[in-house]
Amino acid sequence: MGSELSSAPGAAVRAACRTGVLTGPTPGLALGYVQANLVILPRDWAFDFLLFCQRNPKPCPLLDVTEPGDPEAKSVAPGSDLRTDLPAYRIWKNGELVEEPADITAYWRDDLVSFVIGCSFTFENALLAAGVPVRHIEQNVNVPMYRTNIACKPGGRFSGPLVVSMRPLTPNQAVKATQICSRFPRAHGAPVHFGDASAIGVRDIVQPDYGEAVETRAGEVPVFWACGVTPQAALMQAKPPFAITHKPGHMFLTDLRDTDLEGE
Amino acid sequence: MGSELSSAPGAAVRAACRTGVLTGPTPGLALGYVQANLVILPRDWAFDFLLFCQRNPKPCPLLDVTEPGDPEAKSVAPGSDLRTDLPAYRIWKNGELVEEPADITAYWRDDLVSFVIGCSFTFENALLAAGVPVRHIEQNVNVPMYRTNIACKPGGRFSGPLVVSMRPLTPNQAVKATQICSRFPRAHGAPVHFGDASAIGVRDIVQPDYGEAVETRAGEVPVFWACGVTPQAALMQAKPPFAITHKPGHMFLTDLRDTDLEGE
Repeated sequence: MGSELSSAPGAAVRAACRTGVLTGPTPGLALGYVQANLVILPRDWAFDFLLFCQRNPKPCPLLDVTEPGDPEAKSVAPGSDLRTDLPAYRIWKNGELVEEPADITAYWRDDLVSFVIGCSFTFENALLAAGVPVRHIEQNVNVPMYRTNIACKPGGRFSGPLVVSMRPLTPNQAVKATQICSRFPRAHGAPVHFGDASAIGVRDIVQPDYGEAVETRAGEVPVFWACGVTPQAALMQAKPPFAITHKPGHMFLTDLRDTDLEGE
Repeated sequence: MGSELSSAPGAAVRAACRTGVLTGPTPGLALGYVQANLVILPRDWAFDFLLFCQRNPKPCPLLDVTEPGDPEAKSVAPGSDLRTDLPAYRIWKNGELVEEPADITAYWRDDLVSFVIGCSFTFENALLAAGVPVRHIEQNVNVPMYRTNIACKPGGRFSGPLVVSMRPLTPNQAVKATQICSRFPRAHGAPVHFGDASAIGVRDIVQPDYGEAVETRAGEVPVFWACGVTPQAALMQAKPPFAITHKPGHMFLTDLRDTDLEGE
């Protein structure tokens, strides 16, 4: 099934989630379609979170925001149902992870607002297509992610550190990657840092805070991008009474093509 | 005073407004500094308007959104006071324009949220610097603006037509303008249409809905950009009980440089 879904459209992956056929991670599925992070909050918290995203567009590039109670991501995936169309979710209560269900229909409320947020898979596809290596894909592990000492701009009750992902590249590849990723401001855009990890508060590059360490080879420098885990870190800090997110790596497949996120 | 302020920083124009020295329009002032549209709404309406802007980034590119009750545009103009730092404002009640004061201190409330929105002056400076003519500046009139038959994506209680501004250019200049404006997605970005005005519902090019008509010369076509008057049209349609905007042409001067709005 995995291989069928790799060349399927985004809607086919959503259908596979909805029918319970797919409960695993989504990297490599529906290649060329935009995958997205998901954050769901009660309306009472939604304005603050929308402010937080507006002020921190690199880690939190908004692709779609729903009306309160509407489970359909009308703009990026008409006909979708955000309650069933992801392979796995996380339920948060007071900033604590309490459950990881495959369906959130039982948790749905009329006041929930969903935020669909761009994801690095989009620019990784573009990097690979341009011959720039992506080490964690080569090594078949999750991308290494680090909490930095760079503070996000607070938005209402939300604040927290910028979380970054890291890919080792040669300087020449890093320049190429910067050019390519600059084309995708709604998929985290250009890197935020390269080289000395301690300059952004990363103590030990082989001990990521999320994901798994990857090999940095001779002649390569670590290159850091703003990461979609940043809003989850802000959620843990703000401790809203109730929130839902995707389970990391288990993303929402949209109808957008990667190329739709280029430029404006 | 006009000529002094034309080469002054944004903060000097804000100070001139605050002290009552400047009550006139701002085009040509603090050249190189980003000028912005302003919309102020009660918190109860702010989430809907933030949704509307998020869904319609070409007419409503957000540069800053304040916390409820905070009159300072902390991100784009630290130390500013949005109640006094514009030359003139418009007070709206139930979608009707009721007053045009030079100061809104008397109207301020603890629940007001301010939206600072990018403006075409930014890309006009870039066009002029590149030798692309801007007819309404040559003719010393307000840019002609038209309501189109293109509907904005609704956001909560806000909806309405896309309003566009028009500048006549030769095809060659239009290509150059498209390249230049694509660099400024937070100042309305690339044009939305050129040529046949009736295709976007503009009945009579010499009778703009806002601003003044300009001459289109032999070999030129009308080129249309998303316009910052769009949110005012949405306000008039949604009829919130209370709202404040800038008076057209009387913009908010930020500390941002035009070049800060390039790219991401």
